[in-house]
Amino acid sequence: MTPTLEQVQAIIGLSLPSITYSYTERDVCLYALGVGAPSDWLEQSELQFVYELSTLGFKTLPSFATLFPGKLIDILLTGRIGEIEFNPLMVVHGEQVLRFKGLLPTSGTIHCQPVISAVYDKGSGMVIVVDTPCYDASGIELVFNQSTMFIRGMGGFGGDRGPSGEITTMLEREPDFSQTDYIQPNQALLYRLSGDVNPLHADPQMAAFAGFDRPILHGLSTFGFATRITLKKLCNNDPARLKGIRARFSKHVFPGETLVTDLWHLSDGHYGFTCKVAERNELVLSQGQIEIS
Amino acid sequence: MTPTLEQVQAIIGLSLPSITYSYTERDVCLYALGVGAPSDWLEQSELQFVYELSTLGFKTLPSFATLFPGKLIDILLTGRIGEIEFNPLMVVHGEQVLRFKGLLPTSGTIHCQPVISAVYDKGSGMVIVVDTPCYDASGIELVFNQSTMFIRGMGGFGGDRGPSGEITTMLEREPDFSQTDYIQPNQALLYRLSGDVNPLHADPQMAAFAGFDRPILHGLSTFGFATRITLKKLCNNDPARLKGIRARFSKHVFPGETLVTDLWHLSDGHYGFTCKVAERNELVLSQGQIEIS
Repeated sequence: MTPTLEQVQAIIGLSLPSITYSYTERDVCLYALGVGAPSDWLEQSELQFVYELSTLGFKTLPSFATLFPGKLIDILLTGRIGEIEFNPLMVVHGEQVLRFKGLLPTSGTIHCQPVISAVYDKGSGMVIVVDTPCYDASGIELVFNQSTMFIRGMGGFGGDRGPSGEITTMLEREPDFSQTDYIQPNQALLYRLSGDVNPLHADPQMAAFAGFDRPILHGLSTFGFATRITLKKLCNNDPARLKGIRARFSKHVFPGETLVTDLWHLSDGHYGFTCKVAERNELVLSQGQIEIS
Repeated sequence: MTPTLEQVQAIIGLSLPSITYSYTERDVCLYALGVGAPSDWLEQSELQFVYELSTLGFKTLPSFATLFPGKLIDILLTGRIGEIEFNPLMVVHGEQVLRFKGLLPTSGTIHCQPVISAVYDKGSGMVIVVDTPCYDASGIELVFNQSTMFIRGMGGFGGDRGPSGEITTMLEREPDFSQTDYIQPNQALLYRLSGDVNPLHADPQMAAFAGFDRPILHGLSTFGFATRITLKKLCNNDPARLKGIRARFSKHVFPGETLVTDLWHLSDGHYGFTCKVAERNELVLSQGQIEIS
């Protein structure tokens, strides 16, 4: 049901329950395998993300940070924020933003403080923007997460449509770099061990219930593929050089499909990217942006 | 250096430090992925080993039991058993036996009591047989593990050669069943997250040091592939029907190679199997035996 504008305005600025996320080196390796590392097994450059004794130094893949506020899903599953009630099955992950303030440790405990920073009215649905600064045990901010949730059928409450912020220029010319990756058939079963155990990604019956021919890959796994691929191409696999990455989830990926990542240079230190599925020629990540130093 | 016969006889019957192994449902899923499940992603029969809400019921792949006494390696790495000293780098896993007494839970704590049951003199080396009954928290024996360790250069102490127990009949005719599996390039990096973090399976430099072109797959991962494949073929994936499985580690597997599992019916409820690498036409698991009900 459509909320009132007052109900919507009441949740803007609302702090959600804080989240603590603890992880081990094993979790860091498992995550990297879940986003396709090492992509070239005879090339050793990505071993540093999956092998804790790597001679290149063990590093946490930056997109690992998307796991920190993973328990946000529990809040959404309650179907209630403030006075607004909604059907959790109508919630879709719209966009994801990461901005890095420091290097992610290879194990540790992270404290997250999610806040609803904006709510937009897209007509067909409501967009809720959740900002989550993530801090290490000593209180230093390591990374800023922003997750945009689209709730279908909850629009029309008379609110602001929000910024578009779309980049259209990059699609007008051929990409400067393009890479093809095969998504392994077991990719979603592997990625889910990093915490998002939604049956949609494992259970054929649940996938069919949601209208898919078979279980789909987690959008944040695709986001991890994009991060890994662009980090290698643009930053020589050095996480310290990645300042930020963002993308919009446009469409699902089925494990067993072929992912094509296209990359465009936009301006000094700024790149745009998209990911599409070769078999269907459909964009799955769009409006991708990366900033590097 | 070669031990004396007295030193050898003194360790027969020796109890090694007991081992406690605790695991979660996530560990069970991760192990199954580490041995190639689900082998056919559109076929759902192996989902029950990697998905805790499987409609077929979540089950622990029986070869998961090889992990229970995994800390035996720590004892071997000391290079000393009783009065016998040896170079840990000369120890090779020779054979593995599993005999099931009950179903493995999908999470829990297991108590293992390893005992050296026999020591044999093979001339070129010493064979140490370690029997490890494994009990659940209530003290019920779930599975009997037997690991045979071959220590190169430690033979010639004048002991018994031990039983041969070889099956030669099965190789004289075509197998009754044959299956080909592709070993993913990341297979060893995935399997090692189940606990055996020996760098030989991840680190190109360590692999080269040991004389291999690149890191090799864990023998117990191959053993898990064989268990999974034969369980499906012979027992319709029902672990309750598997009474026992054993095999000899003959040669290494490189991730990225093709594994061919051949199966022969021997007698009522008894089967023999081998695994070979198609690219090199070399046996990697030999003298495989399975008993089912």
